[in-house]
Amino acid sequence: MTANGWAPEALVVDRESVVPIYRQLYERLREQILTGALPEGTRLPPERVLADRLGVNRSTIVHGYRELVADGLIEQRVGSGSRVAALGDGAPERTAAGVPWWVTLPPWRVGQYPAVLGELAASEHGERIAFVQGVPPAEPSPLADLSASFARVGGNVNFVLTYGDSEGYGPLREAVAQRMRRRGCEVDARDVMMLTGSTQGITLVAQSLAEPGDEIVVEAPTYPGALQIFQIHGLRAIPVPVDEHGVRVDHIEAILRTRRPRFIYTMPSLHNPTGVTLSEERRERLVLLARRWGVPLVEDDPYGELAQSALAPLIARGNDDVIYLSSFSKTIAPSLRLGWMVAPRTIFDRLLLRKQSYDMATSMYIQAGVDDFMRTAYDAHLGALRIELAERRAIANAAIAKHWPPSLRADPNADGYYVWASTPREFGARALLANAERRGVSFLFGEPFFAQGGGDHHIRIALTPVPRDAIEEGIARIGAVVKG
Amino acid sequence: MTANGWAPEALVVDRESVVPIYRQLYERLREQILTGALPEGTRLPPERVLADRLGVNRSTIVHGYRELVADGLIEQRVGSGSRVAALGDGAPERTAAGVPWWVTLPPWRVGQYPAVLGELAASEHGERIAFVQGVPPAEPSPLADLSASFARVGGNVNFVLTYGDSEGYGPLREAVAQRMRRRGCEVDARDVMMLTGSTQGITLVAQSLAEPGDEIVVEAPTYPGALQIFQIHGLRAIPVPVDEHGVRVDHIEAILRTRRPRFIYTMPSLHNPTGVTLSEERRERLVLLARRWGVPLVEDDPYGELAQSALAPLIARGNDDVIYLSSFSKTIAPSLRLGWMVAPRTIFDRLLLRKQSYDMATSMYIQAGVDDFMRTAYDAHLGALRIELAERRAIANAAIAKHWPPSLRADPNADGYYVWASTPREFGARALLANAERRGVSFLFGEPFFAQGGGDHHIRIALTPVPRDAIEEGIARIGAVVKG
Repeated sequence: MTANGWAPEALVVDRESVVPIYRQLYERLREQILTGALPEGTRLPPERVLADRLGVNRSTIVHGYRELVADGLIEQRVGSGSRVAALGDGAPERTAAGVPWWVTLPPWRVGQYPAVLGELAASEHGERIAFVQGVPPAEPSPLADLSASFARVGGNVNFVLTYGDSEGYGPLREAVAQRMRRRGCEVDARDVMMLTGSTQGITLVAQSLAEPGDEIVVEAPTYPGALQIFQIHGLRAIPVPVDEHGVRVDHIEAILRTRRPRFIYTMPSLHNPTGVTLSEERRERLVLLARRWGVPLVEDDPYGELAQSALAPLIARGNDDVIYLSSFSKTIAPSLRLGWMVAPRTIFDRLLLRKQSYDMATSMYIQAGVDDFMRTAYDAHLGALRIELAERRAIANAAIAKHWPPSLRADPNADGYYVWASTPREFGARALLANAERRGVSFLFGEPFFAQGGGDHHIRIALTPVPRDAIEEGIARIGAVVKG
Repeated sequence: MTANGWAPEALVVDRESVVPIYRQLYERLREQILTGALPEGTRLPPERVLADRLGVNRSTIVHGYRELVADGLIEQRVGSGSRVAALGDGAPERTAAGVPWWVTLPPWRVGQYPAVLGELAASEHGERIAFVQGVPPAEPSPLADLSASFARVGGNVNFVLTYGDSEGYGPLREAVAQRMRRRGCEVDARDVMMLTGSTQGITLVAQSLAEPGDEIVVEAPTYPGALQIFQIHGLRAIPVPVDEHGVRVDHIEAILRTRRPRFIYTMPSLHNPTGVTLSEERRERLVLLARRWGVPLVEDDPYGELAQSALAPLIARGNDDVIYLSSFSKTIAPSLRLGWMVAPRTIFDRLLLRKQSYDMATSMYIQAGVDDFMRTAYDAHLGALRIELAERRAIANAAIAKHWPPSLRADPNADGYYVWASTPREFGARALLANAERRGVSFLFGEPFFAQGGGDHHIRIALTPVPRDAIEEGIARIGAVVKG
């Protein structure tokens, strides 16, 4: 063997092997090139010559060489045959000497409020009256019934020692579909994909329906977790204002006349954070718009079943153009990490494949436990929860009327988990929060709820994470900050 | 108002509003432009003129106009002032008339074996002896102890009615770190991130450390779920062969001399599917290589604690360059969907942010239950499981010696869940499977375990998902197919 030529006597192929001969050739040459045994510039024998020596067809050698060309390991030129290619001198393109690998990672999109998802999840607030997290109230408690359900399923090998189907546990998909049919939606069990929380569905949609740089439509304000996800994945959110009847569908229409967003992310029922519900008239128009302009709606509906007077979800008006997301986090317990998606058949498999990449399948144990709970305790629990929410709302509205100055305002007709309040001109939301925290009460300031500015004079008060009898006191303390 | 000019008399700004005036200006003009009230070409008043009329600073108008320029709604040219831009005629760029939105979605990367993650999860195999899924054996059963643990934590509001910290439940992170320290790894609780299964960690790494089109190094064969994830995310996998001492580290070295992969994905202990364990010497060399070339190792270690004779994980030799993944799926139960990652501080936050986008946080209920199980039952369970695996291996090896022809071969020194067998030249793996299924036995054929070809004469037999006394019968039936 010389730098200019190579004698293939050393090359032995195993005709009995299950590995095809072209592949043996490829693998052996590759190893010799990569290890430097065949240095740059080494001339390889012409295909016909090597074929004769090895006693194989010429096409076998052609095939083997072609793989090496594809790897960039050899170069072929008409007239001068095949040579080992230049492999570089070991000076890595991306990493300058001494620069550690973590400095050269792909760009990291963190968004403006990178901590927001973590904050929404974290539960440590010390002694404060913390109107922060959107978690269910401690009463009515699902704990006893839930424990009983899990005890019933926990001894079943098939629920605990398996991964389960990625689409979800069949009986639970059917139970979910059945409930949705009762709400006016034409949903079959096979349209339902169980998810590890509905947040997973937002990421699923963001990654499957759009590419970095694509535009989407969001409400302003909207769920900050969704905005954070859209930012991580590089989507550009076009905000559309929300008024007392829900999102301004006329604005969406104007946007669709000139832009082509990948989807419209909307929370039509018990909107987070405003607590408003999209009117029937706007629902009708929004679904028509989506169909006319060919832009799917992503309907996020974690609170829909808790409404004091419920409207049918958007998906009731058109399965083909709506991707529906919901969750048991607000109706049973967040720690279940259980939600679902209803998606058109046209994109179901695409979404499923990506869902598998997030966690293979959602826990069978959790799904079987919730299936049991749904059959035994869910309706009673939901009924009690609606009553509790109405009572908390009444307490909050009374406390606001009693303790807040007129410059601190909230919509008394809001429903659901949250009070969305506007602060006085002289009190930015952050300043209000800082002062309130000194009085032992906390909440969220409004800016993370907006994709492009706004919210600096809004706060969100979650009514559910505190004991019921702390609501008036907490609201009074916020009022006291403003009154000074 | 004419097509050429616009009289701003109608524009009213609210000086008492919390919304800054520039923003009011922006929002009102935006709405009028989008709704067509201000058509294309309409000349807007010069900034100074409008400022005077509204009684505000010129900079307020400049600011408001600038936002409209950023939105593409107005154009500004020196000398000719500001005009409403052309907004298109409503003919969407992406969607031709009549083409539904789901036809125009971003490209979908499915890989060559799109069903493989779903197949690995699915549990429906009829009456067959199904050597398919990598699930723990039914005996020793963790069910009773696990149920007791969940019963103990299920009444705790903080475990059930919260999301919990995205990093994971503190005491469990500490328990995991403690176990890893016992295995020779310098791991602190704050280096541990709890995950919803270790599959989640593979996607986390694929999405956070690399971009579509980037190269990575994988073993050949390797876990097909990982290959599927890398394909979905557009990474180009460079395969490196595995021999009886584990992955060929010399090949990796040769690759690093000429290419710059984002990371090296490796399963050094009880490798799936071969059951081999990387030798001490190669471990040492691999970690040195990673450091020298600045390419991090992704160590996937779901089986490490089940080894009959365990070696310290790679991360024991260098925290800075190793991202470590493990899981309770193989040691307790897959339906927990609970795993963990140990990641360098340099990239921990980047990974955490993306983990939040997959599911906010991993279930607190599951984490608290497993924390209880770890303190009460885990060591005994692991010990029993190791014995069970050794006994199943002995049964399998004896059955292979007794029932297989010499042309059907497996490594008797393999450890862990799987037998990786090579099939005779005349029997491709798919043909063998098709024939075996007719005799009531199933397993996986080898091709999905390879990133770039290979495996057509290999099969993977999982020893754990079947009753112990079905192992010999199943192996005998496979042998009978070959013997004809």
